[in-house]
Amino acid sequence: MSTKVSPLAPKSYPELHEIAGLRIGSAEAGIKYRNRRDLTAFVFDRPAAVAGVFTRSKCPSAPVDWCRRMLSAGKARCLVVNSGNANAFTGAKGIQSVEMTADAAAKSFACKREEVFIASTGVIGEPLDVSGFTAKLSEIARTARSDGWADAARAIMTTDTYPKLATRSFKIGGRNYVLNGIAKGAGMIAPDLATMLAFLATDFPLAGPVMQKLLATAVKGTFNAITVDSDTSTSDTVLLFSCSDGTVANNAGPDSTRRLGPFRRALQEVLHELAMHVVRDGEGATKHVEVTVTGATTSASARKIALSIANSPLVKTAIAGQDANWGRIVMAVGKAGEPADRDRLSIRFGDVSVALGGERDPGYREEVAAQIMRGDFIPITVDIGLGTGRSTVWTCDLTREYIDINADYRS
Amino acid sequence: MSTKVSPLAPKSYPELHEIAGLRIGSAEAGIKYRNRRDLTAFVFDRPAAVAGVFTRSKCPSAPVDWCRRMLSAGKARCLVVNSGNANAFTGAKGIQSVEMTADAAAKSFACKREEVFIASTGVIGEPLDVSGFTAKLSEIARTARSDGWADAARAIMTTDTYPKLATRSFKIGGRNYVLNGIAKGAGMIAPDLATMLAFLATDFPLAGPVMQKLLATAVKGTFNAITVDSDTSTSDTVLLFSCSDGTVANNAGPDSTRRLGPFRRALQEVLHELAMHVVRDGEGATKHVEVTVTGATTSASARKIALSIANSPLVKTAIAGQDANWGRIVMAVGKAGEPADRDRLSIRFGDVSVALGGERDPGYREEVAAQIMRGDFIPITVDIGLGTGRSTVWTCDLTREYIDINADYRS
Repeated sequence: MSTKVSPLAPKSYPELHEIAGLRIGSAEAGIKYRNRRDLTAFVFDRPAAVAGVFTRSKCPSAPVDWCRRMLSAGKARCLVVNSGNANAFTGAKGIQSVEMTADAAAKSFACKREEVFIASTGVIGEPLDVSGFTAKLSEIARTARSDGWADAARAIMTTDTYPKLATRSFKIGGRNYVLNGIAKGAGMIAPDLATMLAFLATDFPLAGPVMQKLLATAVKGTFNAITVDSDTSTSDTVLLFSCSDGTVANNAGPDSTRRLGPFRRALQEVLHELAMHVVRDGEGATKHVEVTVTGATTSASARKIALSIANSPLVKTAIAGQDANWGRIVMAVGKAGEPADRDRLSIRFGDVSVALGGERDPGYREEVAAQIMRGDFIPITVDIGLGTGRSTVWTCDLTREYIDINADYRS
Repeated sequence: MSTKVSPLAPKSYPELHEIAGLRIGSAEAGIKYRNRRDLTAFVFDRPAAVAGVFTRSKCPSAPVDWCRRMLSAGKARCLVVNSGNANAFTGAKGIQSVEMTADAAAKSFACKREEVFIASTGVIGEPLDVSGFTAKLSEIARTARSDGWADAARAIMTTDTYPKLATRSFKIGGRNYVLNGIAKGAGMIAPDLATMLAFLATDFPLAGPVMQKLLATAVKGTFNAITVDSDTSTSDTVLLFSCSDGTVANNAGPDSTRRLGPFRRALQEVLHELAMHVVRDGEGATKHVEVTVTGATTSASARKIALSIANSPLVKTAIAGQDANWGRIVMAVGKAGEPADRDRLSIRFGDVSVALGGERDPGYREEVAAQIMRGDFIPITVDIGLGTGRSTVWTCDLTREYIDINADYRS
């Protein structure tokens, strides 16, 4: 965990409302860090409906495999998260650690092991010793509180420099509901450092399959549209829980498309806010960058071009240097391999047009773009000029600090 | 141009033999750099057969467009190269600059403009002023010498820290021939800095179409198998010239597959040597990294996985830190999106097995791997365990120096 806080950290953190039927606790399990909480549990009084999306890595961690399996039953009584060890690439030992964690949690929280969800973040390839989990989870069962969100947001951090929390209230059918979320991660990203995890809960009653669809859709333009360094963790996990009051959890009423609007908006906003925090806390970040590609042949093509720009080390180092180096954006468009015509390209930094129709905008003045580049939010818009495909992705700059964080000068 | 020379630079440079019918000269055209030569020309006494491969960028530079067109005629009387300005994304002005350069060269070297090949490297988006080229090319016409290779290798440099030269002699049909090459580039790579250019010439008589096939094949495992930062220049150009004695240039004899063996080997070796120099002079490089993937379902799949590893900022920063962080290699395999099975994966650094069958090799000792990591050549082998697909790519580490070179702190 860094001692320096990101210059892009928020001035204050939101207060998250309590959600009836959910208590959150954390404890010091001493997995890797000293003198800080590293084991967290969400405890649901009644079975909660659950939805999840996970890393697309072909080498996922043992906890990711476990959650994918448990999702099919669709009910959660608890979520156990540890930081400091990802329990990834740990072979049979990894599976054993997950099963022992599930057993310990089932005992501590008086539920079935199939109702236990698990996430781990930290170093890869080290066996995770869970022998102390039973005692620690029993401690959490006694101490968990409905206002435990802020502590949990801190306990799941690894290279994060600040805790990430978001909340929205919404009204459906004349009743008020809340959606809370926490996240950790300073990238897509580093397997032994900065896996992206996010956990959300709502008191709005929803059935699992409906939630799953809503979550999968909302993740596309939020968590799946951010990149810090193009690297994908073995452990990325987003879980959404609905702690309904039990009576209407499977009521088809609130699941109808029209009625769900306010929930869908809240979900979109909470995921967006958390995703932006992940980018703003990107390892070494000093700039928050928004790349919008318009006029591509399709939206998928726009997305590929946007990611090519957002993942380009040369674009990202230029932004770190506050350099409006649009030539590197042309390069990144060119290397994306998607349909593009040099002579139709236009590029804007903020509202400053720098390139138009394949060459530098005749009205372009370096000083005006330089002013945009000095800000901490850099919006870049590239119009391909071929169609109506559109996509926005977010990233941060690439700085010396990123190298310092990730090059572990052991020797 | 950096004042610091790469720690991976060679101790000495090869002497390149003269090739009959080829003279090389350079001059100070003052395009961007002061007090150094930045304009180079290869002058062929008789029309040379020519082959070329170029950037796959969808936004290529004006000189790349020009060379692609001229290749169809297949004869070269001269090559003009300038450093300091890439003449890319310069619209109609860029086309005009290329045509003016061709006219100036045609006049100076008494040839047709269709026999002029052109390459430019440097900043993108700035119009290239070629008004001084006529005088400078006339100067080169007078001063060019058959031993001009070393000067030319320096004149085409941008962020390179050392000149790149390679040569091989070979014997075909009882006669001795030579193949010489020079290259510049400190990556695939930076549009305003480090475009990759390579120029080769031989006195072995070959027809253009045969050369084109041989070059396209040889480039695959050499220049197209290296990456510094995953970025692709708008201007990458490799040109191969055959300065035959005119009498046997179209003789089908030497073109036959069996007879061409020695030339093919020489071509492969010269391209490999130059490509390795580009990686060893990668911006900020302190380590030369060889990534070999075996056991993939296909060779194309092996190549994708190898590039995913070689382009991963986290793998590259770990290598910079001399950290045998094989967890990041697992991550990079997982994110490649290619068939992989976590539990069949093996990873070696040099001859040290670090991971086997999905978990850390029980015999692995950190100190032994650390010794490999302290060297300046780091061979990494990953076996996927699924098939016979195999591929090798080369890269360098990612250091603070890379950031310093590419983040232009203008403001």
